[in-house]
Amino acid sequence: MKFIQTPVKGMQDFLPSDMQLRQHVLSTIRRTYAQFGFNEIETPMMEHIENLTGKNGGENEKLIFKVLKRGAELQRALGKIRAGGETGTDANEDGTVLADSALRYDLTVPLSRYYSCHKNDLPTPFKALQIGNVFRADRPQKGRFRQFTQCDIDIIGDSSSMAEIELIAATSKALTRIFSEVNVHGFTVHINDRRILKAMAENAGFPADSCDEVFIILDKMDKIGKDGVKEELLKEGFDAAATDRYIGYFDELEKVLGQADGKEQAALIQDFIAKTCGDKIEEGVGSSLSSIMEAAGGMIDSDITLKFDPTLVRGMGYYTGTIFEITIDNYSFSIAGGGRYDKMVGKFSGQDAPACGFSIGFERIYTILKDLNWKSTDEAEKKAYLVDLKSAASRVPEVFAKATAERGEGLTVTVEPLKKNAKFQIDTLEKAGYTTVTKVYADTEL
Amino acid sequence: MKFIQTPVKGMQDFLPSDMQLRQHVLSTIRRTYAQFGFNEIETPMMEHIENLTGKNGGENEKLIFKVLKRGAELQRALGKIRAGGETGTDANEDGTVLADSALRYDLTVPLSRYYSCHKNDLPTPFKALQIGNVFRADRPQKGRFRQFTQCDIDIIGDSSSMAEIELIAATSKALTRIFSEVNVHGFTVHINDRRILKAMAENAGFPADSCDEVFIILDKMDKIGKDGVKEELLKEGFDAAATDRYIGYFDELEKVLGQADGKEQAALIQDFIAKTCGDKIEEGVGSSLSSIMEAAGGMIDSDITLKFDPTLVRGMGYYTGTIFEITIDNYSFSIAGGGRYDKMVGKFSGQDAPACGFSIGFERIYTILKDLNWKSTDEAEKKAYLVDLKSAASRVPEVFAKATAERGEGLTVTVEPLKKNAKFQIDTLEKAGYTTVTKVYADTEL
Repeated sequence: MKFIQTPVKGMQDFLPSDMQLRQHVLSTIRRTYAQFGFNEIETPMMEHIENLTGKNGGENEKLIFKVLKRGAELQRALGKIRAGGETGTDANEDGTVLADSALRYDLTVPLSRYYSCHKNDLPTPFKALQIGNVFRADRPQKGRFRQFTQCDIDIIGDSSSMAEIELIAATSKALTRIFSEVNVHGFTVHINDRRILKAMAENAGFPADSCDEVFIILDKMDKIGKDGVKEELLKEGFDAAATDRYIGYFDELEKVLGQADGKEQAALIQDFIAKTCGDKIEEGVGSSLSSIMEAAGGMIDSDITLKFDPTLVRGMGYYTGTIFEITIDNYSFSIAGGGRYDKMVGKFSGQDAPACGFSIGFERIYTILKDLNWKSTDEAEKKAYLVDLKSAASRVPEVFAKATAERGEGLTVTVEPLKKNAKFQIDTLEKAGYTTVTKVYADTEL
Repeated sequence: MKFIQTPVKGMQDFLPSDMQLRQHVLSTIRRTYAQFGFNEIETPMMEHIENLTGKNGGENEKLIFKVLKRGAELQRALGKIRAGGETGTDANEDGTVLADSALRYDLTVPLSRYYSCHKNDLPTPFKALQIGNVFRADRPQKGRFRQFTQCDIDIIGDSSSMAEIELIAATSKALTRIFSEVNVHGFTVHINDRRILKAMAENAGFPADSCDEVFIILDKMDKIGKDGVKEELLKEGFDAAATDRYIGYFDELEKVLGQADGKEQAALIQDFIAKTCGDKIEEGVGSSLSSIMEAAGGMIDSDITLKFDPTLVRGMGYYTGTIFEITIDNYSFSIAGGGRYDKMVGKFSGQDAPACGFSIGFERIYTILKDLNWKSTDEAEKKAYLVDLKSAASRVPEVFAKATAERGEGLTVTVEPLKKNAKFQIDTLEKAGYTTVTKVYADTEL
């Protein structure tokens, strides 16, 4: 029987040229975040099922890959179930004996567990960088995979807006460094606050418990526009007066903020929030948001626009304050997103800790750069010696000695047998950046 | 209900200082192998169960973590089983519907699959580097984990000994670079050949089909010595004359090779093999081995001993020729191992391709360096600004502007609120290498 050659469904193999790009992007991310004082950590790929199904993962909780306890135990466990579960504890109906852990679907839940487990050994505030694979049993489609890499930075233990400012500045810097190499410029950082989102809807007259439904519709604003949102709200049976007031807020937004850029906006935001949120908003939210925009606006490169965006929803239910997202101009999707989640760490430690994070959509960035034919700018000398084993087998030690000396000087050198299809061999090496390729025969001078 | 704080059983969280060491070792490995012309690739963490249970993994096949197809399907699948499997295809007794993939237990099986899937897009010979996590549902104990990192280099498509020579030279170089930083010197590269192993046992008089049993005992030579091996062989009922002849071979080994070092040994090995393997060995094995030792001996640093070791067994059944292992003097375990496996790729592609690999025991190396208190030698300037938010909140934009300018010059800078426990905050930063820590109050000059 032949084994299966293709990767498991929805998962990817990466060729050497793919990996060069991936490693290059990752090293830019690592270098940038290190410069901002973030500490890299690592958590296991597997998590306790309880932690992954505790309403921290939203829709992702439906997509977890459960892992069987031990391969060999499956049969036994199934046997027990079939026999009517005679021990009563060995296998429960929900499969808890079969699977008590699962592959993580994000890096935020593991980070919250990690922080509550190790907080006495960690700096305070803790600025964390986590790069790793996550898994979702999603239906595979173009650009959507069942295993993919996430890069998250988080600040835990800082309730002030300084956390948001650092996260926005660091992520913006990493993205401009990555994209400037392929001459892509122009990003927009969209900023909102879950509390503003909620207050605007309530102040317009929607019942508090229907807000989530309203947001699902609001989230389509960039695709269907204000008229589309209005239409859908009415179609779903929402009150016409509330809908009118709500849509009016977004008219007001355009009028007030219009073409104002980040810094001018900061001053106008507080008025807008006061007008549209009324008494539904706690004090200080508006001023906190405008101070974030002011400070972050002073730190980011000129090709980045900072924009207060009250239509920004972000799906995850765990956000408690500021939320943000970065879009790249001319592309229709976001390449980074995050926000404040002050209530998650407490679910692990019993004691809340303020937390705020920003996640880079690594796979999207990788795909964009690959589509733009990113090429390594590494111009180091690379040498290949191809030894003809028919005529020059006895020269192998000599060739290796030469290679060893050159590697000692820092060069990249490969030594290989000259293959029958020498043309393909040499073409491939040249494509991989080898600048000198020497075929070694009995009389070749080295 | 509180969630679980500790990592899943047998798995590890890594603190920032752990990660600094791990990333440092990985970057030395990457840099060294790149210099030798190895191409980094990546394969998914999950593999088809068929591929993982096809006798390529030895004992590891008993340790696979199976992954349920989709979380939500477990109940349904179990329901079907209990209902007597009414569809007949939805869930088989061996659980194949529940789990058709599993977490990989090594990187060699995925590489073989990868090569047969992508060989038309890969150089020939293909020099691969793969760094990644593997999973084994082993009983956890000190130093043994259920998720750990492996670093493998492999050369596929080169049947000549040049592959072995490159692998030994590259791995030796990576290890000396890693360990010289903690002043650990002295490694031994043990080399043997599965064909010599087998021929010696057969020539001594053991039946061909009992060789694997003999090797399990031989493998203990370094622990129980020649006398111990003899005793166990006799106890297991092996023929006394065969046992005597076999033990005699190892007496001969000491006499012939004795204190000879790598290069001298090379010349003596062929005689020894001719004497102890008789007509049970195919032609050329001895000369190939001594040519590997000669060439590799010329490439490695002076603190590495190259040693022909006919007691070296290595467990994996898939090896077909040369096998090797590196031990670190003063430590009782190996830190790298590998060998030639010319028959595995064919199981995927239907066409054999010569292959040889060397795997670094990353977790062991990491543990040794950690125990030796490895410290980063990075002496770059790192600055911290701790803003007292009671007296100097309005200075936040100014502090960030200063940090942005300094980061632009390449410095590492963190900006954080000054915490109540300032002493702990500052101590932690200094321990993490921050050279300047400035507390920012209303009147602090920046």
